[in-house]
Amino acid sequence: MNVAGRPMRTIWLAADRRPGGVRGGVIVEIIDQTRLPHELVIARLARLDDAARAIRDMQVRGAPLIGATAAYGMALAIAEDPSDDGVERAATALAATRPTAVNLAWALGEMRRALAGSAPEQRLAVGLARAGAIAEEDVAINRAIGDNGLPLIEAAFRAKAGRAKAGRAKGGHAKGTSNRVDILTHCNAGWLATVDWGTALAPLYRAHDQGIPIHVWVDETRPRNQGASLTAWELGQHGVPHTVIADNAGGHLMQHGEVDLCIVGTDRTTCTGDVANKIGTYLKALAAQDNGVPFYVALPSPTIDWSIEDGAQIPIERRDAREVTHIAGWTEAKGTEKAMRVEVRLTPTDSRAANFAFDVTPARLVTALITERGVCPASREGLLSLFPERRQRGAA
Amino acid sequence: MNVAGRPMRTIWLAADRRPGGVRGGVIVEIIDQTRLPHELVIARLARLDDAARAIRDMQVRGAPLIGATAAYGMALAIAEDPSDDGVERAATALAATRPTAVNLAWALGEMRRALAGSAPEQRLAVGLARAGAIAEEDVAINRAIGDNGLPLIEAAFRAKAGRAKAGRAKGGHAKGTSNRVDILTHCNAGWLATVDWGTALAPLYRAHDQGIPIHVWVDETRPRNQGASLTAWELGQHGVPHTVIADNAGGHLMQHGEVDLCIVGTDRTTCTGDVANKIGTYLKALAAQDNGVPFYVALPSPTIDWSIEDGAQIPIERRDAREVTHIAGWTEAKGTEKAMRVEVRLTPTDSRAANFAFDVTPARLVTALITERGVCPASREGLLSLFPERRQRGAA
Repeated sequence: MNVAGRPMRTIWLAADRRPGGVRGGVIVEIIDQTRLPHELVIARLARLDDAARAIRDMQVRGAPLIGATAAYGMALAIAEDPSDDGVERAATALAATRPTAVNLAWALGEMRRALAGSAPEQRLAVGLARAGAIAEEDVAINRAIGDNGLPLIEAAFRAKAGRAKAGRAKGGHAKGTSNRVDILTHCNAGWLATVDWGTALAPLYRAHDQGIPIHVWVDETRPRNQGASLTAWELGQHGVPHTVIADNAGGHLMQHGEVDLCIVGTDRTTCTGDVANKIGTYLKALAAQDNGVPFYVALPSPTIDWSIEDGAQIPIERRDAREVTHIAGWTEAKGTEKAMRVEVRLTPTDSRAANFAFDVTPARLVTALITERGVCPASREGLLSLFPERRQRGAA
Repeated sequence: MNVAGRPMRTIWLAADRRPGGVRGGVIVEIIDQTRLPHELVIARLARLDDAARAIRDMQVRGAPLIGATAAYGMALAIAEDPSDDGVERAATALAATRPTAVNLAWALGEMRRALAGSAPEQRLAVGLARAGAIAEEDVAINRAIGDNGLPLIEAAFRAKAGRAKAGRAKGGHAKGTSNRVDILTHCNAGWLATVDWGTALAPLYRAHDQGIPIHVWVDETRPRNQGASLTAWELGQHGVPHTVIADNAGGHLMQHGEVDLCIVGTDRTTCTGDVANKIGTYLKALAAQDNGVPFYVALPSPTIDWSIEDGAQIPIERRDAREVTHIAGWTEAKGTEKAMRVEVRLTPTDSRAANFAFDVTPARLVTALITERGVCPASREGLLSLFPERRQRGAA
């Protein structure tokens, strides 16, 4: 999507270092998302270790982008060591970077399959081609999610316009009937979490680009604040009206008719429609149900874990407590003093903290799943209606 | 409760400036809660304006402490101007400092009633006596809330010990059966929110002091982080085991049996049992209901607004968006560089933010109310069973 008016992606091959280019070698470039929203810094990945660190330290994050980065990481590893052992070591190293995202394992599996049939000297070309294809597939999938989610926003807009008209006819002002569609999202499932478009935000970008007036309530999403820093930044860069709120505020807004629908992404969806996503998603789904607000989950099909029936079986990553006890932000520029990135402590020095990265929203709280193949109920039957080939595999 | 091993309160008359003391005049001292948890700073209030600012800027916060500070603020105003006009002006100024807390209006009403019958030259003595009595009443009320809530924690401990024993007998390890009572709380309803003991935390201090092993999950409570800064600090100072978590984490913990009960405070309770409390309380109540976890609200009776039937009628304070876009914390001390309080920006400079201070948890989600008179269902009948004198007034 746009950054300062120009289209950009989250990961690409460096123009000066494409294989066969002037300087040879392979360099992958990414937006260093740990520096957003205050600085747009491009990081260059030259080796497997760079890619593994970028994933582990969350310079890239979001299940689809983690998958694409892992794929490019395999290509970087091959440039160093194209042997069978090298491929296996790279896959093992990358698989260990983040435990929850199923796309990571999926992308590594795709790369290994693509590489298995080729001789070591062909592997760099094969690996780069497959990594590039994985990135392009992600863009195509997300664009399709946008297409499929768009009618849900159009319908919400028509319904709201109708209610507002009825309200005006009565001479009153019904609660929550602004002339825009108010959409709440949690964490960042925008283009920064993917290669482009995003998952949850793809339908929003489509609606905005089409002239439907939307406004996004952006959960700041503690402890890593991906909403406040990433979602707010990308919506702002693309010109989408939005308001940042504390994670605590969503229930209150829904009680007061200020949210027309929720759309979130997911890191892993079970074949029964349970959804693992950023910690706190479950609380918003409960509030949506309690207030009759539709709660949609957007997902590319590589995010579906067909092997897991019950969300409780999804391993939940526990991250460093320091993400809860400390927070980084930017100081104000004053006179000759430049704005600086500073990390500050929020808690007493002798208080423990715990940091659970994800929670699982049971399918019963999800109104529908938005996939690249269409919209379906959050259930085994719903998913199988869009992915019938999985039915045959299940029966086999 | 204890600070570094010694008992302390949140508000008191300065020892050197009590009326008739060596230096004369009146000075009220408070803990400046905006400096916690990193510094224990005592602020001295000498004038009405000091008291009004202390409430507005949240150097003191928490409904009961706001009430006590307003009462002392009236006394400070009388020291400046004991006339009828002076009393009215002071009450008006103090009433405007915070819109939601019903204790504020209650304390000002008490002070005006006490002052109405006395001549201007007697008013300082009368005002100080009534303010002191309001503070002592608060301590007594909270101690009683502690007494009444204690059996709920004792029962949870017995039930948990029983389940653990049954689990061990089966040779298994049941989920969530630690040998401690895990209690989740939101915001700060501890002694820092009152004159002493606290409301929600009073039963916890009673249980801890009595040797029941408790552990508290402390919601950090964005945007002002009263949990991370105040609740964690006061629990730590008193030696109560606790863990700070992001507000997003509570639902996940409840899904996994890691919370035995929730206890929160309230800024205003309707006569039907709806509860206004810090933004995000409603989300935890939804999660508690969804997981069969008891959700208790502790409240001193001055917090009950007998004139309001429906929580939706409670005015919800919207505060400065800067509390969402910025956060203050402390830098690490390094060599000769001292730790410093620094405010940093979290959001993009061109993103809007909104800051809703409270939400309303409907009575249907509240397991029981814990008051100074006992424990009752969150309903009109429940409250009237403890406060039967209100039934007569209602019928009159």
